[in-house]
Amino acid sequence: MINTDPRDPDQLLLRAAVERLLNYLARARARELPVLVDAGPSQIDDAFARRVPISLTDGLAHTHEQLLAAIDETVRLSVHTASPRFFNQNFAGPDLVALAGDWIATALNTTGATFEMAPVFTLMELHLLRRLAQLAGLPVDSPEASEPPPRAGLMLAGGSLSNLHALQLARHRVAPQLREQGAVAGPRFAVFTSSHAHYSIRKAAQLLGIGSRGVIRVAVDALGRMQPAALEQAIVEARAAGLTPLAVNATAGTTVVGAFDPLDQLALICRREDLWLHVDGCFGASLLFSPAQRRVLSGIEHADSIAWNLHKMMGMPQQCSALLVRRPDQLRACFAEQAEYLFQPDKPHAELDSGDLAFPCARRIDVLKAWLSWKRYGDAGMAARIDKAVAHADYLRERIAAADTFASAHPGGPCNVLFWWLPAGLRPFALESADGSMRDRLHSLTAAIKLGLRARGQVMLGFSPIDGGPNCFRMLFMNPEVERDDIDRVLAEIEAVGAALG
Amino acid sequence: MINTDPRDPDQLLLRAAVERLLNYLARARARELPVLVDAGPSQIDDAFARRVPISLTDGLAHTHEQLLAAIDETVRLSVHTASPRFFNQNFAGPDLVALAGDWIATALNTTGATFEMAPVFTLMELHLLRRLAQLAGLPVDSPEASEPPPRAGLMLAGGSLSNLHALQLARHRVAPQLREQGAVAGPRFAVFTSSHAHYSIRKAAQLLGIGSRGVIRVAVDALGRMQPAALEQAIVEARAAGLTPLAVNATAGTTVVGAFDPLDQLALICRREDLWLHVDGCFGASLLFSPAQRRVLSGIEHADSIAWNLHKMMGMPQQCSALLVRRPDQLRACFAEQAEYLFQPDKPHAELDSGDLAFPCARRIDVLKAWLSWKRYGDAGMAARIDKAVAHADYLRERIAAADTFASAHPGGPCNVLFWWLPAGLRPFALESADGSMRDRLHSLTAAIKLGLRARGQVMLGFSPIDGGPNCFRMLFMNPEVERDDIDRVLAEIEAVGAALG
Repeated sequence: MINTDPRDPDQLLLRAAVERLLNYLARARARELPVLVDAGPSQIDDAFARRVPISLTDGLAHTHEQLLAAIDETVRLSVHTASPRFFNQNFAGPDLVALAGDWIATALNTTGATFEMAPVFTLMELHLLRRLAQLAGLPVDSPEASEPPPRAGLMLAGGSLSNLHALQLARHRVAPQLREQGAVAGPRFAVFTSSHAHYSIRKAAQLLGIGSRGVIRVAVDALGRMQPAALEQAIVEARAAGLTPLAVNATAGTTVVGAFDPLDQLALICRREDLWLHVDGCFGASLLFSPAQRRVLSGIEHADSIAWNLHKMMGMPQQCSALLVRRPDQLRACFAEQAEYLFQPDKPHAELDSGDLAFPCARRIDVLKAWLSWKRYGDAGMAARIDKAVAHADYLRERIAAADTFASAHPGGPCNVLFWWLPAGLRPFALESADGSMRDRLHSLTAAIKLGLRARGQVMLGFSPIDGGPNCFRMLFMNPEVERDDIDRVLAEIEAVGAALG
Repeated sequence: MINTDPRDPDQLLLRAAVERLLNYLARARARELPVLVDAGPSQIDDAFARRVPISLTDGLAHTHEQLLAAIDETVRLSVHTASPRFFNQNFAGPDLVALAGDWIATALNTTGATFEMAPVFTLMELHLLRRLAQLAGLPVDSPEASEPPPRAGLMLAGGSLSNLHALQLARHRVAPQLREQGAVAGPRFAVFTSSHAHYSIRKAAQLLGIGSRGVIRVAVDALGRMQPAALEQAIVEARAAGLTPLAVNATAGTTVVGAFDPLDQLALICRREDLWLHVDGCFGASLLFSPAQRRVLSGIEHADSIAWNLHKMMGMPQQCSALLVRRPDQLRACFAEQAEYLFQPDKPHAELDSGDLAFPCARRIDVLKAWLSWKRYGDAGMAARIDKAVAHADYLRERIAAADTFASAHPGGPCNVLFWWLPAGLRPFALESADGSMRDRLHSLTAAIKLGLRARGQVMLGFSPIDGGPNCFRMLFMNPEVERDDIDRVLAEIEAVGAALG
């Protein structure tokens, strides 16, 4: 069906696609492309219709020339996250060495479930997880140099799944019988999390049969951090209401404002109350790479589990998510099902198989990209990436403070900057003294400016309300290619669109 | 930190890695490489130590030359699934056009959660899912040509996650209050699945708080198919035991023997008993592509949900898994959490956002590879892939039947062939009349032959016990590059190793 002749059209297509991608990435990184093309579904439909219909209903085979045309349209009409003017999400363009790692792993097409099928990747994962656990200060045995290190956790398909595993581990610790008997047999559990925490915690509780009523939202302070006193009060109230406190989900880097919950204090409470401490560090745990910044994570060494996404601040292409656990032996106790066709004790090195340590069986190979990228930059380069992001956030905060057309919407964490553009009638602006119509105006104006930015296509950043306030811009620094000029450009674009609207 | 100069070492590394990969894939596909190198952890450790230590503890930055050397070792020591002599798993080497699709999507580094971040991929996913739903015979509206088609499901990170979503949908249908109240408030549910079904069903039940006691294993017939009469009996017994029947998990292509449960009959029972019918078609739903083979899936059109992995029979690089649902509106009802920073009604085309329809928030882009590959082959090419796999399985069955050194271990489904190699003392062999020591001998001999094959590195196939019997070889046909010579070679290799051992 396919031959391996170098003139084989599939091989030529693969080669041509790579050439286009390398050229595209260079142009996007050099700011030679807009960040996005403002096209809705019907425009996309039309653009494809001229080359290859986007619908699959005709069932036809297409020529390689047509496929390349479709690839060109796909690239052109996608968001160019590799541009240093993309600030819209808590990820950005991929690091090129990491991209090479993902491409290689994909081409080798295997699963991380067994050592047999992933000998190199199994070892790399053990080493990577061990280093992450060391950075977090979790207890890590020092094995003989010739042995693979003991497993410190697992890589999973994203942060939501890591958080889900953490809550199941927490439940299994106190009620292992529920794995067989079901949650109907158990107590009503309570999981405590800040009101700014990621919604995957609620989703996980729903999925696990804990129920969203079991997710207690704890108040945050002015910086968006969970208040320890409020947590203590919530635990008392939960017990009084007949709930069994199970776990605290502490967030290290909340999604919108980038707050870091006070892990030291939360850890003390968890120890006293015998609660599982999970740290959702999907966004912010990467600050551990930086000696200058890691102090905001003080106390993470007491965590029972940590979720950590390297595809956010560390530039790994999606997905690259680690779950670290203090007692990795609990993974097998909690998840093993011993499928006999797969995890065979009569295979060599079966003790290194990981498929029985998680909910998923097959796991995509997400380790090579992180391993290669870390080897390329070394610890110092990984730290520099974080420090540059924080420095950019500081710079933007200074610019916001100095401009009377902008106002800070929230102090924000080390890497998140939250701000409004102010129309003439709202300068200077103080949220406390703003009435409902002023708030409404700012709320809809922020969304309107985003639409205007989208039409211009030169920069991309997100917006969100905070605690029911008016929409504000959220700017994140995920890409080490960003320079101050890019930040200036964002403000200038907002000014231009805002002035025309406001 | 990184520049876009074409002499930039990261760009050069990416280019050099691709050159190596293209060369590697061509050689592996041309059978110029062994399927694997037989190396344990310490050999791998040593091989890396000569280039770049596999451990990350030194924290050093490495040169691009060293990184390329590490890439070479990674490729050399990994399993070469692209070889047409790899038969070990229910996946194989990636289709090259699909590989291009994965590489492109990874380079564009975005998430499928919102239309804003994935405009092209959102539309492609809608079209792909719709075509899959049509193949399955699920009701699909015919929209205006200019509109994107209504959503028929979701792509998720693997079959286990798809099965998990299906069971949560089933529970939400009959007990939506549990999402808030937790499973403790609800009945004890029962999920019925065959004794040959994938273990992810038990894992999902444990995770959901249904408990493994709620997973009722239904007996299979001689071909490995769930027995409808046994299912009816199990439902009666579950009710008598105070359980509330919830769902039937019917398997279309069981992992070991490749059996297809009788969907027509199971659907009748589900309708009569008002149970959710989930079809775990992760392995076998792809037979729907073939007009000649799809009859084994008769009745799938009655399913409430279908899990379907295109990364198994269809050659997509991992991962590429679809969950189809009969009533897609239930996804939002079951999973939505409306994170306001992400799913904003004031964004254009927010109605196309999918992040609120699933448990995970971010979803990796897995659609482009499937879309491109389908466009390349067309419906006829997709069917040919299936037909070739079935023809190969038939050929191997004929060879087994004709050889007195081999014996069939199970009739198997259309694409799975199960067999033993027989030592001289066990020829001819009939399991029914074999005593314990004969069974033990065959059991350990099969594992020993696999080890011998591993040492030779020329072919790779798996083994498993069936229903507590002795280990047998399982051969699967996932790669359209396979020719009869490759199958002959497997048998010859087994003969050679077996004769030396047996």
